[in-house]
Amino acid sequence: MVAVAILAAGRGTRMKSDLPKVLHKLGGRSLVEWAIHSCCEIPSTRSFVIVGYRSELVKTALANSPWVSVLQPSVEFVEQTQQLGTGHAIQQLLPHLAGFQGNLLVLNGDVPLLRPQTLQLLLQTHEEHGNAATILAAHLPNPKGYGRVFCDGNNVLKQIVEDRDCTPAQKQNRRINAGVYCFRWTDLAQVLPNLGTNNEQQEYYLTDAVNFLNPVMVVDVEDYQEIMGVNDRKQLAIAYEILQARIKDDWMASGVTLIDPESITIDDTVELQPDVIIEPQTHLRGKTLIQAGAHLGPGSLIENSQIGANVTVLYSVVSDSVVAAGCRIGPYAHLRGHVQVGESCRIGNFVELKHTSLGDRTNVAHLSYLGDATLGTQVNVGAGTITANYDGVKKHPTHIGDRSKTGANSVLVAPVTLGADVTVAAGSVITKDVPEDCLTIARARQINKLGWRLSPQVPPTQP
Amino acid sequence: MVAVAILAAGRGTRMKSDLPKVLHKLGGRSLVEWAIHSCCEIPSTRSFVIVGYRSELVKTALANSPWVSVLQPSVEFVEQTQQLGTGHAIQQLLPHLAGFQGNLLVLNGDVPLLRPQTLQLLLQTHEEHGNAATILAAHLPNPKGYGRVFCDGNNVLKQIVEDRDCTPAQKQNRRINAGVYCFRWTDLAQVLPNLGTNNEQQEYYLTDAVNFLNPVMVVDVEDYQEIMGVNDRKQLAIAYEILQARIKDDWMASGVTLIDPESITIDDTVELQPDVIIEPQTHLRGKTLIQAGAHLGPGSLIENSQIGANVTVLYSVVSDSVVAAGCRIGPYAHLRGHVQVGESCRIGNFVELKHTSLGDRTNVAHLSYLGDATLGTQVNVGAGTITANYDGVKKHPTHIGDRSKTGANSVLVAPVTLGADVTVAAGSVITKDVPEDCLTIARARQINKLGWRLSPQVPPTQP
Amino acid sequence: MVAVAILAAGRGTRMKSDLPKVLHKLGGRSLVEWAIHSCCEIPSTRSFVIVGYRSELVKTALANSPWVSVLQPSVEFVEQTQQLGTGHAIQQLLPHLAGFQGNLLVLNGDVPLLRPQTLQLLLQTHEEHGNAATILAAHLPNPKGYGRVFCDGNNVLKQIVEDRDCTPAQKQNRRINAGVYCFRWTDLAQVLPNLGTNNEQQEYYLTDAVNFLNPVMVVDVEDYQEIMGVNDRKQLAIAYEILQARIKDDWMASGVTLIDPESITIDDTVELQPDVIIEPQTHLRGKTLIQAGAHLGPGSLIENSQIGANVTVLYSVVSDSVVAAGCRIGPYAHLRGHVQVGESCRIGNFVELKHTSLGDRTNVAHLSYLGDATLGTQVNVGAGTITANYDGVKKHPTHIGDRSKTGANSVLVAPVTLGADVTVAAGSVITKDVPEDCLTIARARQINKLGWRLSPQVPPTQP
Repeated sequence: MVAVAILAAGRGTRMKSDLPKVLHKLGGRSLVEWAIHSCCEIPSTRSFVIVGYRSELVKTALANSPWVSVLQPSVEFVEQTQQLGTGHAIQQLLPHLAGFQGNLLVLNGDVPLLRPQTLQLLLQTHEEHGNAATILAAHLPNPKGYGRVFCDGNNVLKQIVEDRDCTPAQKQNRRINAGVYCFRWTDLAQVLPNLGTNNEQQEYYLTDAVNFLNPVMVVDVEDYQEIMGVNDRKQLAIAYEILQARIKDDWMASGVTLIDPESITIDDTVELQPDVIIEPQTHLRGKTLIQAGAHLGPGSLIENSQIGANVTVLYSVVSDSVVAAGCRIGPYAHLRGHVQVGESCRIGNFVELKHTSLGDRTNVAHLSYLGDATLGTQVNVGAGTITANYDGVKKHPTHIGDRSKTGANSVLVAPVTLGADVTVAAGSVITKDVPEDCLTIARARQINKLGWRLSPQVPPTQP
Repeated sequence: MVAVAILAAGRGTRMKSDLPKVLHKLGGRSLVEWAIHSCCEIPSTRSFVIVGYRSELVKTALANSPWVSVLQPSVEFVEQTQQLGTGHAIQQLLPHLAGFQGNLLVLNGDVPLLRPQTLQLLLQTHEEHGNAATILAAHLPNPKGYGRVFCDGNNVLKQIVEDRDCTPAQKQNRRINAGVYCFRWTDLAQVLPNLGTNNEQQEYYLTDAVNFLNPVMVVDVEDYQEIMGVNDRKQLAIAYEILQARIKDDWMASGVTLIDPESITIDDTVELQPDVIIEPQTHLRGKTLIQAGAHLGPGSLIENSQIGANVTVLYSVVSDSVVAAGCRIGPYAHLRGHVQVGESCRIGNFVELKHTSLGDRTNVAHLSYLGDATLGTQVNVGAGTITANYDGVKKHPTHIGDRSKTGANSVLVAPVTLGADVTVAAGSVITKDVPEDCLTIARARQINKLGWRLSPQVPPTQP
Repeated sequence: MVAVAILAAGRGTRMKSDLPKVLHKLGGRSLVEWAIHSCCEIPSTRSFVIVGYRSELVKTALANSPWVSVLQPSVEFVEQTQQLGTGHAIQQLLPHLAGFQGNLLVLNGDVPLLRPQTLQLLLQTHEEHGNAATILAAHLPNPKGYGRVFCDGNNVLKQIVEDRDCTPAQKQNRRINAGVYCFRWTDLAQVLPNLGTNNEQQEYYLTDAVNFLNPVMVVDVEDYQEIMGVNDRKQLAIAYEILQARIKDDWMASGVTLIDPESITIDDTVELQPDVIIEPQTHLRGKTLIQAGAHLGPGSLIENSQIGANVTVLYSVVSDSVVAAGCRIGPYAHLRGHVQVGESCRIGNFVELKHTSLGDRTNVAHLSYLGDATLGTQVNVGAGTITANYDGVKKHPTHIGDRSKTGANSVLVAPVTLGADVTVAAGSVITKDVPEDCLTIARARQINKLGWRLSPQVPPTQP
């Protein structure tokens, strides 16, 4: 039996924010969601998030989070109304875990980069050895400020010495306490009430509890970047860079070409197939799947979308949409609101599609807005065609049959249906349905007024 | 009394440019404007810019510069028609400063990163100790090529040894002469005429003057990057990176989230409030204010504009405009020429606003151009609506009243006024004023020609 | 007489790709094209590319490559049906080079960064000394995994020791075998049949042949990055970064300002004149020439185009086009398909030009599509003007004479010709030719229906 406790009560003063620190975003997840995510391999039977500063915000955010289901069987929020240190935070669990006979995993809501396997290894070591406590350590290039961890040859802890208490020789030890712990709860529960505040910050430290327990073992994290805490916006930026490098290195290893990887961002919820090519300044977010051979960017944003095989996307924004194989999108296209694009379509420049579906081999090449529209196959939408889907009160649908063609600057006033093989003359405003095999036209006759000139005749200047 | 002299006469051959080196831009200021900016805490009573190569260009640029007012009481240009070294440059001041009893601060027009506090400290030390001269020094990681500075324990200069004259032991000294000086003018004026050209470049060096003076003290700059000179475009790029890191670190410390900071640029004239979030590849320039909670980018350029609280801007360009709180801009919007946007407006894709004002809760969502227009509140501008504000000769205004609505692909031929609660039918060209509570329509009747087909019937191909 | 052999038979398993490794792109060229490019100073009389994995793809790619002409007199493809090592690959040349009396230069198709001068120096040294073989060596910061090269004081090879066979002392030698060789063919041909597979990989190694020959000399490459091989996508990204730094440093040295160089990419086929300024996130590709004083970006892509002096391009895409001096392009313009723009034109936002030419001082400022059009000088194209160049079957031309002006949302239905000094009224669909000095108009009369209101009257909501 394992309980998980995540410390998320602090304000995070150095963030200089209205938002509690743990709600700041790192890619697609908040810091606390990342901490939760790192527990995804832990078979928890109880799960606590200890909240304090603006606790309602944290509770609401997690109530709406798709990631919180990692915390099994469900998350229990525990209020720490005053923030008197990590030991004090865990003391709040005493009434909730009365009689609990398992282990307690403690981690920080502002340490987002811990890998699930690291916590798994920590728990496994703890359980295998039946330790009173097991703590995570890391070897830092620059250990300044951290408590140093001293062990015997079997990774059994001898002592943790705070940085300020270290002798010069002890300071040479770069193995530090990462602040991630696994406790045998019955042991911890006994010592928790005895914590004191005899330290500079006058806080209750969980580290002190460790010193009361026996035996305590140490597990080293291989990649020390995992234990990085986020205390300010600069560290948030650094954590993001580390996370991104991790994600991008993985995708490169699996057969994705990234051109100028540093300029690209990829959420860890994105899936990429081999031989995808991603050009500079391209951002892939949310639940997105990019299929083999797609070529994205430069300068594109794709969010919660599926992009089919061999699709090209250039300088465009695609949200909440599905694009089938072989399409060409952009530059300067915008798909949003559940667009479905068939195979081998061409969505050109200055085209917005919203809540619209296109059949295969349909083209919307220039300067169009289609909203709430259903187009068949091989439709050709002329430049400047607009579906007037909004009458000022509500939205209406437009249907266009296979192989139909709309002229330049035509307007389809919804609700309206055009059959198959319809041609809409340029500049026409179509307000009534059009049967198949029709030319439909609504425009005035052209009159040339001879000998007419702009007066006074001056060269056009820059508008 | 303090006089300031900025050396700005050189060509900067390694820039390979038609422009004098000091006029090359580093963010929002030219190099010489940065040098001037670094004097902003100096209470100068005389200010000189020594010009030479294409001096007219430098004079004109500074005449039009908003930054030159830092030089009090006004800038005096001194011609150095031949460029015979730093000593020669300062010799040109002799006629101008005859009888001057104060101190002279000398700095280089191609050293843009000096912090005002550094010069302040230099001047303060000089005045407090009543030195004949006080020089700025820095500890460089790689001092190669620089004159080394040797002092006694009280920072009193013993000697400056040029790199080529250093013994191997002296070369180990990483404390170098930064080329920034404060002189007691009467002392300097005496030795200036005695400078010689007995050196490799056959130039008159100001360093030689230092050696004639006594006592000379040394002030160290803490951040050695401040003294970096710009001699070629690569150094210009490096200086820009340093400057940007400085600016961005400051904003992160004050509560702004930068996602991928390296891809973002922020002029030092920009002001950001806390909890602003800036996405990658976003550029903030000129006199710009971003209010709390705004979320900018990716891929946006905002220049000389004010962006209200909680506004989002996505892939857009905003210049010389004011956007009130709660608006959503983009993707692919362009605001320019003194646009004013009310609260909670929506400016969508492929929309250009120029010299136009929108009331609160007004939407211009797709494919529109509004120029010289004034819109009320809750107006809905249909996709493809255009104000024909230019008749080939001059511009005319358009007015649209509250709650009015324009249909898709409508044209408003200015000058024209639409009252409140007007509806413009889709595809209409409106040339005459429309009173309130009107539907206005200008279009032809729709005719369907049955049985008409494109002939020869072939599938539409890629246009 | 020199023959060149490029090893391009491997699959490149770690690329995790359907494509043979050597066909992966590094900027504007595939890896094997870069290897070919590095031979451009070699006066070859025979040229071989040794192909194996998916050889048809490699042959087809090179058949269509403009770079393959470097291989003189023409490329001969040699099949290596099994990939049994570098020695085995060169063994395949034995029947092809029977009786050949010259030297053979051997290089790898996955080593793209070799400079032509490096191969030139290798060949020159080989020929001057009449060596049996001359090999390229490099001093690596981290030589782990590479064969170490041991020489006498005259760069005569004593031995190459594989990393795994090195003594600890030998491992300290950072001079490694770069895998680039020049052989006297008659000598090599004698020893090639004697190669064995007595090694871990059970492959035939060309290095073994070197050990059989005498004398062998070593040439050191100054920049060790040149010999980097590309084995996975991460290395592909690193090679790209190295290549880009090389290209961009060269352009900065020659007088081009790059703002945030790391965010910019420039193909090595691009030519830039002095005082060009390139803003962040700008990409220059293919056969592109940027003339003096042009200011590009941020956020632009220019491909196979010529941009005239002092042109500005902001957030735009230009392909296969020529833009004359003094034009202003963008933001959000798209030129493609052989556009020709005269001097001092203005191409504004949301404008697409395709296969179109503009005379001097012509403006297309907003929301237009012009395809297959020819415009005279000083034409003013109104916002929303569209050439309906495609009738669903084929494309037709549009001609607009000097000083003509099209109204907002007008459509020109091609084929159509407008004379000089024509004015097209806003919203008109022009289907017939218009003589010069005409106002042409095709629209309905405006009718205001008083007292009409949207019903039910509700405030417009977000569309």
